[in-house]
Amino acid sequence: MDMISFIETKKAGHAHQEGDIAAFVRGIVKGEIPDYQAAAWLMAVNFNGLDPDETVALTKAIVDSGKTASYEGLPGPVVDKHSTGGVGDKVTLVLLPILAEMGMFIPKHSGRALGFTGGTIDKLESIPGFNAFFPEDRFMQVVRDVGFAIGGQSPDMCPADGILYALRDATATVNETGLIAASVMSKKIAGGAKHILIDVKVGRGAFMPDEASARKLTERMVYVGQALGRNVRCILTDMDQPLGRSVGNALEVNEAVECLRGNGPADVMEVCREAAVELAVMSGLYDADLAAGKFDKAIEQGTALGRFIRFVDAQGGETGWIASGKGLPVAENIIEVKYEGGKASVVGLDALAVGEITRRMGGGRLSKEDKINPAVGVILHKKIGDIVTDGELLAEIFCRESGNGAQWAKMVLDAYTFTNRDR
Amino acid sequence: MDMISFIETKKAGHAHQEGDIAAFVRGIVKGEIPDYQAAAWLMAVNFNGLDPDETVALTKAIVDSGKTASYEGLPGPVVDKHSTGGVGDKVTLVLLPILAEMGMFIPKHSGRALGFTGGTIDKLESIPGFNAFFPEDRFMQVVRDVGFAIGGQSPDMCPADGILYALRDATATVNETGLIAASVMSKKIAGGAKHILIDVKVGRGAFMPDEASARKLTERMVYVGQALGRNVRCILTDMDQPLGRSVGNALEVNEAVECLRGNGPADVMEVCREAAVELAVMSGLYDADLAAGKFDKAIEQGTALGRFIRFVDAQGGETGWIASGKGLPVAENIIEVKYEGGKASVVGLDALAVGEITRRMGGGRLSKEDKINPAVGVILHKKIGDIVTDGELLAEIFCRESGNGAQWAKMVLDAYTFTNRDR
Repeated sequence: MDMISFIETKKAGHAHQEGDIAAFVRGIVKGEIPDYQAAAWLMAVNFNGLDPDETVALTKAIVDSGKTASYEGLPGPVVDKHSTGGVGDKVTLVLLPILAEMGMFIPKHSGRALGFTGGTIDKLESIPGFNAFFPEDRFMQVVRDVGFAIGGQSPDMCPADGILYALRDATATVNETGLIAASVMSKKIAGGAKHILIDVKVGRGAFMPDEASARKLTERMVYVGQALGRNVRCILTDMDQPLGRSVGNALEVNEAVECLRGNGPADVMEVCREAAVELAVMSGLYDADLAAGKFDKAIEQGTALGRFIRFVDAQGGETGWIASGKGLPVAENIIEVKYEGGKASVVGLDALAVGEITRRMGGGRLSKEDKINPAVGVILHKKIGDIVTDGELLAEIFCRESGNGAQWAKMVLDAYTFTNRDR
Repeated sequence: MDMISFIETKKAGHAHQEGDIAAFVRGIVKGEIPDYQAAAWLMAVNFNGLDPDETVALTKAIVDSGKTASYEGLPGPVVDKHSTGGVGDKVTLVLLPILAEMGMFIPKHSGRALGFTGGTIDKLESIPGFNAFFPEDRFMQVVRDVGFAIGGQSPDMCPADGILYALRDATATVNETGLIAASVMSKKIAGGAKHILIDVKVGRGAFMPDEASARKLTERMVYVGQALGRNVRCILTDMDQPLGRSVGNALEVNEAVECLRGNGPADVMEVCREAAVELAVMSGLYDADLAAGKFDKAIEQGTALGRFIRFVDAQGGETGWIASGKGLPVAENIIEVKYEGGKASVVGLDALAVGEITRRMGGGRLSKEDKINPAVGVILHKKIGDIVTDGELLAEIFCRESGNGAQWAKMVLDAYTFTNRDR
């Protein structure tokens, strides 16, 4: 293909032909197009954008670059759920066993995370023995047996996405609606689900900082899904403060288990319920009322928790810590962050800052080679809307060494904004 | 250096610090910055531009990436002339011997050309034996002895420019004012001249299609020159129709010799005279009137032609074809293009089209590996403003094989626009 004129087309703000996009994606997978030309194109796309039909063409080309999964003959609808990622987002861990209890099948492929948000695979790998990387036929077997499985991104699926993502990451060209939508949707479509729900996080602790860009992204993903024969809906959920009370891999798994026991924070349970009802209705299983009832029952009866135990076991993880109620081990150095001053309301809690503190304590990575310490993190005892008085506990910090404790404590305190109630 | 944040700065439309630009240029020369990151930055620059001070910093960094030449102790001012390139532009060949006759010294480094415009080196290499690539000390000796020399770009000078230019060329990021200005000015500054005249071609057959962008470029180059201690002026000259009557390497050298004999087309001589007077005044040699007189004398007395013969001889080229008046050999298949219709005026002659026809006949190259046939080209007997009648000769095409003659003839005819005088 004539790569110079392909770049020039986008630089001039014109739309590509479907065939040219397909040829471009084939070219990068075959290694026929040099990285620098792809990078120049990506930057031009960051300025001039991809239109909806170009996004469909790019998604299709990425899907066509690898294998696709198919789940014929399962006794229930095959669904998928994706979150654009946020601080404290453990929804997948809570939601999937509930969906399975409701009669849905969820073959979920997930990524590791870079930066301030944790990835679902990273969270699950804080369970001793848990394995997210096994052959596709074994993965499919877990889906059939347990109702859901959570695996890493298969290198055979959407290889073009891996190449493009690495290049976007290295060239500051990550955030363009069409590129994000094609990256997300291609993996969902190759994954084989018919009904796809996407949870777009909006706010300080998410990749989409404002509602307008989040709405644009959701519209684009719905358009792509429709064009490629999938039933796609999106929900927008707030990510100005962290979701739930726990941030950090093991702490979040423990909180997810508490959710399945019926002791979960209201905000996490609300997102889960909304997503479960939406997927049940989308896939034609139940109407909204019946779906809500099934959701509640899966928690109340403990069947969702039982399903989660079966899932961890099927993927090689230890489960004794769940049954015993002890939870996964967390860091032993605990620093208490207390409020000092008159009676006040919490009016802000910066999700980005809390995520960044956890990452710096060793709970996240900046480059793909970084090792994660699953035991560190933060538990937030006060969140937006809570009232605090002098000396009250705001948060607990779980860290490796207490030496930096004062520094972490100050950073967590600074993440909070208060309004004095006495004024 | 943190290349991601460097790219993000430009993507967000902010200005770089001088030190960051210097670190970037050092990084690309050392091969420490991957091509794809440099390419993404170049595309961001194509969208958000470099401001004047960033252009100075980039120019300085490119100059600092290699050796610089110095011409102390010559008995006259050291000047340089650069053209941004256009179809039929043989000004350098005519102007330099005249400047030398007027008492200036011109160490000129020139490039090969890609696309529809011929490079000065390509033109000179149509002279049997001519050598543009010899060691710097030999080049300097020719400048001292003859008053001027024309060499290829030395790989030791401005190596960063070669790397950046190749990348710009391969990523459709050639045309941004700051990048063009830094590329041109860095080579002129490293070349050692104190007084620099830049001929910016404007129109269909030039890289600058409109006067506004040409003016922006000239202002930028003057600013950069001033900041780095050089005396820079720019002239804007028209390039809607080819300059002179001949297009094609050997044909243009022959026309340049005719210019030096006093038989040159008025438009070529006008540009040469303007440039010569400007440089004589800039360098403090003469006032404008005296300079014009020296210019005319160098042509009338044939001393500029003699100087050209010495120059060709000093650089290893044969010179018998000049003295004998035969000229360089050109292609033997000559196709006449004639006007058919009533009496009319030529109101347009597309320089780009004529350049492109010559390139396609083998007279130019698309990639650096292409070999050039110096003998092909076009002589334009009618240009804008000329009146033509039925059956009159418009142009002659010099090509390798007559087989495609009808096609070339149609293309040349299509490059002309006529207005019927009878209406």
